[in-house]
Amino acid sequence: MELTRRRFSGMAAMGAAWGLAPGIGAQQPERSLRYCIVGLGRISMQHFMPATRLSKYGRVTALVSGHRDKAEKMAAEYGVPAKSIYSYEDYDAIAGNPEIDAVYIALPNSMHAEYTIRAAKAAKHVLCEKPMATSAADAQAMVDACRAARRKLMIAYRCQFEPINLRAVGLIRSGKLGKVEAISTGFGFNIAAGEWRLNRKLAGGGPLMDVGIYSLNACRYLTGEEPVGVQAYSSVIDQDGRFREVEENLSWSMKFPSGAVASCNTTYGANLTGFFRVFGSRGVIHVENAFGYDGQHLTAAVEGEPPINEASTERDPAHFPRLADHLAECVFDDKEPKCAGEEGLRDMQLMGAIYKSCQTA
Amino acid sequence: MELTRRRFSGMAAMGAAWGLAPGIGAQQPERSLRYCIVGLGRISMQHFMPATRLSKYGRVTALVSGHRDKAEKMAAEYGVPAKSIYSYEDYDAIAGNPEIDAVYIALPNSMHAEYTIRAAKAAKHVLCEKPMATSAADAQAMVDACRAARRKLMIAYRCQFEPINLRAVGLIRSGKLGKVEAISTGFGFNIAAGEWRLNRKLAGGGPLMDVGIYSLNACRYLTGEEPVGVQAYSSVIDQDGRFREVEENLSWSMKFPSGAVASCNTTYGANLTGFFRVFGSRGVIHVENAFGYDGQHLTAAVEGEPPINEASTERDPAHFPRLADHLAECVFDDKEPKCAGEEGLRDMQLMGAIYKSCQTA
Repeated sequence: MELTRRRFSGMAAMGAAWGLAPGIGAQQPERSLRYCIVGLGRISMQHFMPATRLSKYGRVTALVSGHRDKAEKMAAEYGVPAKSIYSYEDYDAIAGNPEIDAVYIALPNSMHAEYTIRAAKAAKHVLCEKPMATSAADAQAMVDACRAARRKLMIAYRCQFEPINLRAVGLIRSGKLGKVEAISTGFGFNIAAGEWRLNRKLAGGGPLMDVGIYSLNACRYLTGEEPVGVQAYSSVIDQDGRFREVEENLSWSMKFPSGAVASCNTTYGANLTGFFRVFGSRGVIHVENAFGYDGQHLTAAVEGEPPINEASTERDPAHFPRLADHLAECVFDDKEPKCAGEEGLRDMQLMGAIYKSCQTA
Repeated sequence: MELTRRRFSGMAAMGAAWGLAPGIGAQQPERSLRYCIVGLGRISMQHFMPATRLSKYGRVTALVSGHRDKAEKMAAEYGVPAKSIYSYEDYDAIAGNPEIDAVYIALPNSMHAEYTIRAAKAAKHVLCEKPMATSAADAQAMVDACRAARRKLMIAYRCQFEPINLRAVGLIRSGKLGKVEAISTGFGFNIAAGEWRLNRKLAGGGPLMDVGIYSLNACRYLTGEEPVGVQAYSSVIDQDGRFREVEENLSWSMKFPSGAVASCNTTYGANLTGFFRVFGSRGVIHVENAFGYDGQHLTAAVEGEPPINEASTERDPAHFPRLADHLAECVFDDKEPKCAGEEGLRDMQLMGAIYKSCQTA
């Protein structure tokens, strides 16, 4: 199903030429953060690995895969020596590889915790895809393991580094929007049968865990607040075998300490291109394709200002070099990542509360 | 506050020439429904009364107002004789006026029930503005009174007759959108201090009763279903004296028998131009300025069809002649109105449940 593979690419990708942000990838500095890629799926091979070449500090120096042939092909492409190709069974041997500083974990959700904790025990830093885990307990264990090992743990919330999302945050923080009163947001797609995301054991849940998390995280970074309440409904409509284990649709409301309210939708049953609308007392912001790999478009009407209309000129995988570089800078300067493990843990706790609300609603 | 007065006019009104839908107002047929206008506020004077001149069957033949000078001015404009100008005290005398077939009630919400019931006792049909009342009990009494008097009761849900809203309903009913999975919608505006809408006794509630009702009603006519559950949060953020009695913001979720879910926002604290997005298994519909007096704009992407992009060419008050004419046709043919009292009663019951959820959330 083509919609599935393309769901993050957005309208801007149609016919658009490959483009790089100015300055990115211009030269490799002496310092680098050497990544071991854990899991060779689409997000690794089509997004993160190419992005390391556009990054200032990221390099691919090792691979972990269950498919030796695929791993060897990627190793050849990225100049990874045969000794730095690992299977899942010998993953712990990365501890003895001085050419690895960090791991990038792009496995099914249920494996994030184990492979993060094993990386920490191997004294490697961790960049882990979202959702961080399949339970808040696992997420807490990941935070604890990395802290005990004195290694960085960062969750790959790429929209927290994306310029149009940051422009929205900046407009709000500047006070120009006044007080945030309400947010409307959603993200979803029409999932193909057979995806591991439909397996509860691997995914931990349905669209909320996979794409709804973008809307949840956005409401938090837009308001700069933590919700004090969540209420939700979930449902399965399409009785075509896809949704035996996870929800198809989920609609939830949140309330923040300031009084700001949010209403959110996520689905695996319809093509719900990610969006958010922030309604402030002095202005409004609309962002279309808010969470895609590219194609973000912001319009805003703010009292006393000319209309704002800004579209991202970036092209996928432009979001990913920032992730590779941010963890690098945090390692170099011993700083906490902007989206450290605790940030992912909060989303896990909130998603747990949202699912609990669905059960009692 | 200019935003308040203009809130329904939308972008299309900016610089747009006055335009009439083809065929409307071309000639007055012999039959007519003669309206007594109850309450001379903005909606009567700027929308409904001018609209009767564009309608096939509507005529203004009487007025009820507490301001004799204003009433005399409007009477002169519409050719209403002095004997057909009533005060609220002598309203019941409309019973003896054979030049009145129906009343159009455009009073503060809390007065809708009393003036509807008195109209029914005077053997007049009733076209009542939304929200129908300030409680489900009052709404039920209105339904009962009109039924007992064998008179029609219609609630002025103009969007149920608006072509772009009907186009969305048609796309859904045709099956082209597949199954409706989720709906995102909202409507609100930044209210001026001093409006009667901020007085709980007169309004019955805040933005939910006034504009959120459009989103609520839309979710019902889009799905063709009645919600089986509602959950909500309300809040007051702006401590500027406006929100001593009613909520400022309200976010709610709904679930429908099919499994369709809806997430909705309403506010009196931000300029939230009405919108809805319907996410179906085979396509999506976006409608901007969905509930304004004009300026509706629909875009839709449906599997196997070229993109749909349709904007309303109507100009305010083009929505209102349909209300005047629909009640007329129902009276002539002894049919139940499309949005009879029972339709308004269901919204009142649901809004009661939404407010109740806010209290326990």
